Amino acid sequence: MGNPRTHLANSLHLHSLPLSVADMSEVLTFIESNLDRFRAELYEFLRIPSISAKTEHVEDTRRSAQWLANRMRDAGLEVEIIETPGHPVVLGEWRGAGEAAPTVLVYGHYDVQPPEPLEEWVSPPFEPNERDGRIYARGSADDKGQLYMHIKALEALLTTNGSMPVNVVVLAEGEEEMGSPNLVPFVETNLDRLACDVVLISDTSMFSEELPSLGFSLRGLAYFEIHVSGARSDLHSGEYGGAITNPGNALAHILATLHDKRGRVAIEGFYDDVVEWDSKTRAQIESLPHSDEQYREELGVRQLNGEDGFSTLERLWIRPTCDVNGLLCGYTGEGAKTVLPNHAMAKVSFRLVPNQTDGKVRDLFEKHVQHVTPEGVTVQINELHGGRPWRASVEGRYFEAATQALEEAFGTTPVLMGSGGSIPIVVEFEERLSAPVMLVGFSLPGCNLHAPNEWLPVENFERGIGALALLYQKLAN
Amino acid sequence: MGNPRTHLANSLHLHSLPLSVADMSEVLTFIESNLDRFRAELYEFLRIPSISAKTEHVEDTRRSAQWLANRMRDAGLEVEIIETPGHPVVLGEWRGAGEAAPTVLVYGHYDVQPPEPLEEWVSPPFEPNERDGRIYARGSADDKGQLYMHIKALEALLTTNGSMPVNVVVLAEGEEEMGSPNLVPFVETNLDRLACDVVLISDTSMFSEELPSLGFSLRGLAYFEIHVSGARSDLHSGEYGGAITNPGNALAHILATLHDKRGRVAIEGFYDDVVEWDSKTRAQIESLPHSDEQYREELGVRQLNGEDGFSTLERLWIRPTCDVNGLLCGYTGEGAKTVLPNHAMAKVSFRLVPNQTDGKVRDLFEKHVQHVTPEGVTVQINELHGGRPWRASVEGRYFEAATQALEEAFGTTPVLMGSGGSIPIVVEFEERLSAPVMLVGFSLPGCNLHAPNEWLPVENFERGIGALALLYQKLAN
Repeated sequence: MGNPRTHLANSLHLHSLPLSVADMSEVLTFIESNLDRFRAELYEFLRIPSISAKTEHVEDTRRSAQWLANRMRDAGLEVEIIETPGHPVVLGEWRGAGEAAPTVLVYGHYDVQPPEPLEEWVSPPFEPNERDGRIYARGSADDKGQLYMHIKALEALLTTNGSMPVNVVVLAEGEEEMGSPNLVPFVETNLDRLACDVVLISDTSMFSEELPSLGFSLRGLAYFEIHVSGARSDLHSGEYGGAITNPGNALAHILATLHDKRGRVAIEGFYDDVVEWDSKTRAQIESLPHSDEQYREELGVRQLNGEDGFSTLERLWIRPTCDVNGLLCGYTGEGAKTVLPNHAMAKVSFRLVPNQTDGKVRDLFEKHVQHVTPEGVTVQINELHGGRPWRASVEGRYFEAATQALEEAFGTTPVLMGSGGSIPIVVEFEERLSAPVMLVGFSLPGCNLHAPNEWLPVENFERGIGALALLYQKLAN
Repeated sequence: MGNPRTHLANSLHLHSLPLSVADMSEVLTFIESNLDRFRAELYEFLRIPSISAKTEHVEDTRRSAQWLANRMRDAGLEVEIIETPGHPVVLGEWRGAGEAAPTVLVYGHYDVQPPEPLEEWVSPPFEPNERDGRIYARGSADDKGQLYMHIKALEALLTTNGSMPVNVVVLAEGEEEMGSPNLVPFVETNLDRLACDVVLISDTSMFSEELPSLGFSLRGLAYFEIHVSGARSDLHSGEYGGAITNPGNALAHILATLHDKRGRVAIEGFYDDVVEWDSKTRAQIESLPHSDEQYREELGVRQLNGEDGFSTLERLWIRPTCDVNGLLCGYTGEGAKTVLPNHAMAKVSFRLVPNQTDGKVRDLFEKHVQHVTPEGVTVQINELHGGRPWRASVEGRYFEAATQALEEAFGTTPVLMGSGGSIPIVVEFEERLSAPVMLVGFSLPGCNLHAPNEWLPVENFERGIGALALLYQKLAN
């Protein structure tokens, strides 16, 4: 063990680790000495505005897939771009460990959320900018940055050692931010190729800085657009106001009926399938180093608020929600236009918890809205996005390997945490591939996912690549 | 009386009129033979996008004033463009009738409403288009078309007869659609110049086709913008949903509290100053040829709706309202963006009836909103526009003259009607100039004021010029 160790290797506490891990020092040295290039490559990736939900970015999204495929090939994978009815899947494979070795399916996505409102970005969303140890760009955390950490970990292993002890299949889709409409059919028609022993996903956050985390839950999603329509056209609010139902007023009324005074969703039957969590899990959540006051301060709100009877972390992880995501009606420009609008639109989404399903919530929501819609207007509901909630079984050898890899890379035992967000494909993977899913995320709370000024800590990008290289090595044990 | 009479003169039933009116035949012949030119000029006026509420149209609005001033000069008036802190006033005067004769103050406005939503216009808003006997353009009815009818009536009288029996002052402002912020100060500093015996305004509609009308009331206006603010920035609705108050949900809640189940405004004290109208006026309203079913059909709504206990015309004319004019929050583009917005905005306006005032309604509204705003968000209210309601005294010699002029021009006795809209300056004129105001309007219900596809009937433009020429002649009697 006379070899000089690199800074990264030192920071990973290799001096106190068993031999098999210490053998990783060459891999970690490779990562250390190539970090500048890795970051420069990530910036190229982030510059491509692969906004999957917008039709005008179809070509950008395809370009993003092509760019990723090339980098995956450079890393040593066999890569194929596979068409779907929407944006393509990029599939990379390395099966050199042989049939007896475990196979890991890595899932990530190369598409991003729309960047609006643009005026709130300090630096442009598609021009990565490093400030205060953070990489600011749309997709830096969700999910290009985290997906790319896997590619670089694989490159480090394959370049340094020429092999790995596990087979790896990387599945990168381009439709996660629009609800993955073509992914389940893709999985179904490629079951053999995707067969695996464990699924590894880095699309979540750590609980806090320097506290690595493994995810134990995800919320599901049911996302709708409500359209309320009145007269044939917009009318003058003086000439006609008072004689017909105003779609803007009607929409406000409909939305206001969705909650009761206790902060609960006031749709009949909404909680019927909600599982009450066991006291052990609730106690574990309670034990996490969370401060309501600090959280409130970070968000810049007057006070926290939510469902009666639950703590903030419980409200975020194990309780369902109903949020307005968008409103549009009438005149919204400068000044006072006295219009009686003939149309009002809301985007409304529900976060779901086990065992709710988006299908049942859609039925309950539609029934509720029909019931509360005022006379004189018509209402239409479109479902834009749906996904089931998920709860992990946090045990077994792969889970143990992840715990060790994170502990070694970050120097501290990882915690278990829930996630308020949704990755609908997780349940599908688990059921269709009969393999456990592990969520190993490296972004941070406050990373502005889906908001202006999204960022990823430079340090987590660097440490995370090391942690993933360690994890691939350990999954074979 | 051997002179051949023109078509217009015939249509005005001059064969049955007394001599003084029959003398008008030359004037009416002039109007008849210049109609094509009048219309072409109006089209020039309508092509100027004088949208007073939008800063990018400041120059267009000024150009509109300049154009109007030139046409008023052509008509025989002495004209001055007078600066204000906002858009200028165009003041035209003809005082040739002498001090003993009555002076008529004609008021109108050369600015227009914003044309949005543009995609709903069949022909472009600022390119006049004639279809089915209607002039389609923003401002055709409100108010360029009606203001220009006065200019052409004056031109016909002054060109044909070289004089009129009344003095005339035309006051055209460019800020009516933004609440006339500089008009009262202008009136106050020009009381001598605006001194008059009667004020004449054509900025309302007739009750129906071929049924000329005189206005007996206007509603007032109190127009607000509500801003609800939450977190420091937009957030991911999965990562944060459930733990803080969503400004979109909060805004919907606030707006929903503004009405009760009987269709009344549910703000404490809102009805305290509302005058219950006398049974005679209500009976007169009841006697008008109105069909709810036809009205419903014209508007294209499922059913009419409004305050319990009042008919449609009463709801429109003598009862106050509260309408959402605009909503904006979060993501409103294509697809499903899972954003927890940090801001939500509504434009909300009240139509007022005697003796409500916008000042008191503002106080009541602010108090109400503060009271019902959920915890965890902040709310700010901006007042954009205010104006007092008005009720006419429908008697006296000028009122009699108007009744006769309309009857002669349209061949039928005019009806009395209310107006749901607001012309806040009317009360101000009446009080500050101590002169009665007469509303003689020529647009029609369904003219799409403040909405896409605004129109004015060609026939009313033509007949109206004749009616106004007759009226100027009669006001001296």
